Amino acid sequence: MPEHPLFRPAPSSLPFVSTKIDWKQTPTAHVFRIDLPGLRKEQVKVDLENGRVLKIIGEMCVEKEDRLNNWHLIERSGGRFVRSVLLPEDSKPHETDAHMEDGVLTIKVPRSEVRNGTVHVAVH
Amino acid sequence: MPEHPLFRPAPSSLPFVSTKIDWKQTPTAHVFRIDLPGLRKEQVKVDLENGRVLKIIGEMCVEKEDRLNNWHLIERSGGRFVRSVLLPEDSKPHETDAHMEDGVLTIKVPRSEVRNGTVHVAVH
Repeated sequence: MPEHPLFRPAPSSLPFVSTKIDWKQTPTAHVFRIDLPGLRKEQVKVDLENGRVLKIIGEMCVEKEDRLNNWHLIERSGGRFVRSVLLPEDSKPHETDAHMEDGVLTIKVPRSEVRNGTVHVAVH
Repeated sequence: MPEHPLFRPAPSSLPFVSTKIDWKQTPTAHVFRIDLPGLRKEQVKVDLENGRVLKIIGEMCVEKEDRLNNWHLIERSGGRFVRSVLLPEDSKPHETDAHMEDGVLTIKVPRSEVRNGTVHVAVH
């Protein structure tokens, strides 16, 4: 799947780790899910910049190699992460809800009501 | 870091997703940490096979694409995972403890006591 044009990754000059994100648009909301294993809600910051940019910031903490212990495998990585998303115009960012559970952050941004069906225009 | 010779990944013929694992050997235990975001303890199986092989099995569940919703980004992946580790001879596998928190599984396998210091051999 190609990168969505509204999505902007973290600037490459920062020391950061990659985080995986899903972005689903339902009829009523934009729903984001981000894998952040090992993090509690206090360790994640969700900001709205200029009312349109959703920014998720945090730091993945993993134990560092040390001399006391012997490390057989090191695959998990630690470091800062920043993910920014420019919300579409139909978003209602001030009603954003964020929820952390089992190492997954879910963010819901409601969408403006979609006017479906027929609109009758009065003839005068 | 090169792959540890005692570590065996899942057979490549299975449909599986990758999981990240750290393996630290302290003076008293082998400690494994595995990132499993979104999983609860009921969704992970930790087996000991033949008393020496530690096997971690489960399935990462992510929402599948559907026609009702519009998906802007899909980076998280779902699927089965199997990771097996051949425990070193100094392990006490029957005292293994596994604990799930914030999407990270921690497994502790105590080690046999290490006999440090000088051992005096009687001269007779």
